[in-house]
Parts: sequence; structure tokens; C-alpha cells
Amino acid sequence: MIRFDTECAFAEALKALPLPDLDAISAAAERQTTLTKPAGALGRLEEIAVFMAGWQGTAQPTIRKASVAVFAGNHGVAARGVSAFPPEVTAQMVANFRAGGAAINQLAIAGGARLSVVALDLDRPTGDISCEAAMRADECLAAINAGAATVASDTDLLIVGEMGIGNTTPAAALCLQAFGGGATDWCGRGSGVEDVGVARKVAVVTSAVALHGPHCTSPFETLRHLGGREIAAMAGAILAARMQRVPVLLDGFICCAAIAPIVAAQRGFTAHCLAGHCSAEQAHTRLLEQFGLEPLLRLGMRLGEGSGAAVALPIVRAALAAHNGMATFAEAAVAQAL
Amino acid sequence: MIRFDTECAFAEALKALPLPDLDAISAAAERQTTLTKPAGALGRLEEIAVFMAGWQGTAQPTIRKASVAVFAGNHGVAARGVSAFPPEVTAQMVANFRAGGAAINQLAIAGGARLSVVALDLDRPTGDISCEAAMRADECLAAINAGAATVASDTDLLIVGEMGIGNTTPAAALCLQAFGGGATDWCGRGSGVEDVGVARKVAVVTSAVALHGPHCTSPFETLRHLGGREIAAMAGAILAARMQRVPVLLDGFICCAAIAPIVAAQRGFTAHCLAGHCSAEQAHTRLLEQFGLEPLLRLGMRLGEGSGAAVALPIVRAALAAHNGMATFAEAAVAQAL
Repeated sequence: MIRFDTECAFAEALKALPLPDLDAISAAAERQTTLTKPAGALGRLEEIAVFMAGWQGTAQPTIRKASVAVFAGNHGVAARGVSAFPPEVTAQMVANFRAGGAAINQLAIAGGARLSVVALDLDRPTGDISCEAAMRADECLAAINAGAATVASDTDLLIVGEMGIGNTTPAAALCLQAFGGGATDWCGRGSGVEDVGVARKVAVVTSAVALHGPHCTSPFETLRHLGGREIAAMAGAILAARMQRVPVLLDGFICCAAIAPIVAAQRGFTAHCLAGHCSAEQAHTRLLEQFGLEPLLRLGMRLGEGSGAAVALPIVRAALAAHNGMATFAEAAVAQAL
Repeated sequence: MIRFDTECAFAEALKALPLPDLDAISAAAERQTTLTKPAGALGRLEEIAVFMAGWQGTAQPTIRKASVAVFAGNHGVAARGVSAFPPEVTAQMVANFRAGGAAINQLAIAGGARLSVVALDLDRPTGDISCEAAMRADECLAAINAGAATVASDTDLLIVGEMGIGNTTPAAALCLQAFGGGATDWCGRGSGVEDVGVARKVAVVTSAVALHGPHCTSPFETLRHLGGREIAAMAGAILAARMQRVPVLLDGFICCAAIAPIVAAQRGFTAHCLAGHCSAEQAHTRLLEQFGLEPLLRLGMRLGEGSGAAVALPIVRAALAAHNGMATFAEAAVAQAL
């Protein structure tokens, strides 16, 4: 299991990211050309199969174990009126996850993924980022490690999700710090705030980035100042996945914002990631453009929890089913193109 | 089982299309508002659940029996050099379907659908539409009935697919006749022809529509003059589905072109259809716009066989899993929006 003993260990890991297996990529791409279909006719399914081959290190990748890890955290900034829901909903939804009643429970079952839920100090909200750092360094490291600890090396595909009332605000702050623009570019309605709530988010995000920007000297420091526990945990999990060559199916805006500080520092970080879904939260489109990722789905979802990625999981399964199960032109005695 | 004894019976059926159950739609939409998520946060998954409720006539629709019916036919126009593959591939691919080696075999399994394959007089290609009608009236009616016969009334969701070397050419002709524009608007690379092949398609489609247009006085006559057996079968299956309130997940360009003559005559015909996938074949985007349908997927696929719809099937399953399985705010004791 991956664990970062210090902030330095986290930084060092980012400098030594493993790459996909190029031989497996070549072999999988070659296999695609032999299957009984016109070349390229399965479109992105072919790309997905080759992507999975690279990270699993085999020409015929499979998904035996798909995992969804949902992290929950509370945010001091929620007191600023940036969410449509009261903060106690975070804990209530964790109970709902544990009882099997949330969307992600059903969607994980439908996708054939196992679900784990990690509640991170819900009774201790992070600092209000509009006037203080979200976390101390030890708190941020603990959250990152809580995320990393959920990623077993035998995971074939990882999805991370989140629950945290108010967390589109720190997510927007992370994006603004990472990729610039204006606060309005990164602030949307989240779980459903009206215009006045969006205006509050813009004000909070603007002041948070102005206050903490000078201290955001590394991905870790950015996560610590502007993030949240569930956000740092997602970053830790996605990094731990990379270190173990586990491919990741990214979820929505918060999930992607969690790695924005890392991607800004290292553009190649998302090489092990597929974008499962583009959220209705406007900033997610912008963020995926920064990542250079084209989402598999655009279904207007904006729930978090890993839900969008869970809906995309069967697409990855379909890609591998075709890749592994189809007959070749030779096996089926089908004539090739003229 | 639906069967049309005459061309008139087919025309009469189009005048008496059943509508969805409005009470079930209301009840399903009401249920969505009670589930533990922000209102609308599941985006199109919510719309899908309500759509399925309307056609199944219950507030909590399910998919126990999903069916994929693949129809195969041969085309006289294939001799005009409009395809990248030789005509014998149609029969070879039917054998491949029956042996389990094609993409749709794997994708149907992955989506939990049963697959049936219907080969329609492969040794008797249709007439070359550039100089004669594709079918006699009795042949066209037989093909329509072959399609209708595959739709059992207990089907919860139907997918129809096709295999027919050269069939993007009659498909383009059907679209041009139905919706106008120019032949270039509806002709693409199909299974992979070069520019010269596309130019041949444009010429064939232009002359076919000029020749037969005056005789295309009804959806049946349009299918008969410009279509093909597998195309007429798909139209018959999709109509038989509507008559039995079976919802349909549409596949790619050919599948949609099969109902273009019906939709042009009756815009509400697609009310029981979801667009599973938008093909890389450029004309499909244009055709879905004519239908007023937004596809669930855009994965750059262009294979036919029902493959794009089969990949979309798990999205419909996910929608129903969330709709039926999630807890309500009251059940989970979760606070609602402020």
C-alpha cells in the first residue's frame, strides 16, 4: 500500500511517475487491426482498450476488480452561504452511502464495482479558506494518505468520488490557482445555488486565492491551503493509482479539481486517467480542456459521489469485451477491405 | 406478434400510434424529486427513467428483457463500387454473428441483452437503386414483417442493428428523399471508402432519388424504392415496438435512416426512441437533428450491427437502477435544500 511519510515523499513521487507499457500498447493496437470490423470502426472503444493495455501491461486487459472510493469531508467555508444544502448533509449522506441508499450505491452495483466510503473528520471542518488555510500540513498529509490507502495494487480500474457540502468552492479555488482566469470562470451553481450564492462563491474564491496564492508553492501546499480533506484524499488516491499503474476513470468537477494542482505542475499526470463524464457544472468543461481529456459521457449530471464515472464504467467494460472477445478476420474467414 | 397483411395495414398502423402513459410519467417524475440528490443532479439519467416509465406504464420501470435484433441484407447497388468491402462479407459476417465472433456478440453480452440474427435473402440482392426499385411490394412487406416478427410484446427495451455491404448508399438515399438537402449532405465514408467511393455514392444517391422520388408517395413506397431488406426490417421492428409500447434504443446511421421515411411523414414517430449513439458517419448528426434526438453517446463508432446502442444500454440500466434503488430524503433522513 502506498503511504507518504512526509510532504517531501509526496513531492518525490510526482517526480518519478511510471509510464505505460509501450509493448502492451503496440500489441493491443495490432490486435485491434485483426478484429472483424472495418479499421477504426469501434472509435473510442479501441482507444480505451489500448489505454487499458498500456497500464495493465498486457495486450488483453481485463476488469476483474473495479473500485469506487468515496471520500467525505466538511468545509469551514460552508458557513459562507456557498451551498444550497446545510453542512450536516455531509454526514447524513455518509450514512446514506453506508445504508445503500445513494445514487453511487446503485450505480456502482450497476457497473459491477465495489464501493468503499471514507469519512474524514466530519466533525472538524477545514479552515475557512477565505481567511485561513484549509488544513495544517499534518492534516493534509493524513487526508492524502487516507486516499492512497484505499488503492490496492490489484485494482483494475479506480473511480474516486466525493461528498462535502460546500466543496465546489475550494474546487473552484484550486482551479483558479492552478490555471488562472477569473473566479467567475470556475464558479457555478454546484448542487443548486441561485445567482446570489454564485456571487458569494466568486467573492470567496477571489479572496482565498489572493490570500493563499503566494503560499501555493507546490501541489501539496496548494491542496493544503485551498483544498479540503476529501479533495486531498482524492488527489492521494489518484497519485497512488499512478504509482501502481492502476488506471483511473475520473468523475466530475471536484474529482478533477483535486488533481488540478498536480496537473498544473506536471501536464503528463493525467496519462493514467480517462475522463468518465463532463459535468453540468460549467467549470468542468474548462478543466477537462486544461487536462486535454475528452469525456466519455456528457449526460448533464452534477452529483459527484463518483456517479458520472460509475455510469461510464460499462463503456470501458464494453471496450474490453470487444477487444478480447471478437474473432479475427482469419478466425472467422471474413474478407478484409478491398 | 405484429404482422402487416398489406401495405395498407402498415399505413394504417402509422395513423394509430399509441402514446406513453402520462400518469406513469408524472409518477416517475414525482419520484425523482424525492430521491437523495439535488433536484436534477442525475441529468439525463432522470429523463431516461421518466421516458421508460411512460412506455412501460409504471412509475418504476425495469429492464428484465433487453433484445438486440440484427438484420442482414444484400444490395444490388454494391456492384457500383460504393463500399470498401466485397458483398460476400455480408454472409460471412452473419456466420460470424452466429459463431459469436462479432462486436455485437460481445457488446450484447456486456449489456445483458439477448441477440437474434435474421438473414434476409442474402442470395437475392435488392435491385440496384440507381436504375430500378430496390424491392417489389411483396418483398418489402415480407422484410417489414420479418422485422416486426422479432419484437415480442414482453421486450423491455429493443435495439435493432444491421449488416449489409453497401447499405450506407440506400440509407443516404432514404435521408435525401425524406429530408432534402444535397446528396453530399448524406453520403460519408461508410465502412471506409476513399474520396472516389464517396463520389460514386453521391452520384448513385442523386440519380436514385431523381428516378424514384416521384414514386415515393408513402413511407412504404420510399422504403420499397430506395431501401433494402434489412432496412425495411428495421423499420418494421421499430414500428412493431411502438405498437406494443416497447421503447427502442436507436443505433447508428442505417438504423435511423430506416425510419427516416416514417419520421418525415410523422414527426412524433420517434417518441418511443432514445438515440443510443451518434456515429462518426457525418450524416448521422444531421439525421438526429432532424429527429430532434440528442444521442447518449458520441464515441466515434461507425460499425452498425446495433453496436453503438448496445454500448448505451448500460446507461439506461444505470438510470433505472438509480431511479428504483435510491432512498428518498425521508427514508434516509437527509435534509433537503435550504
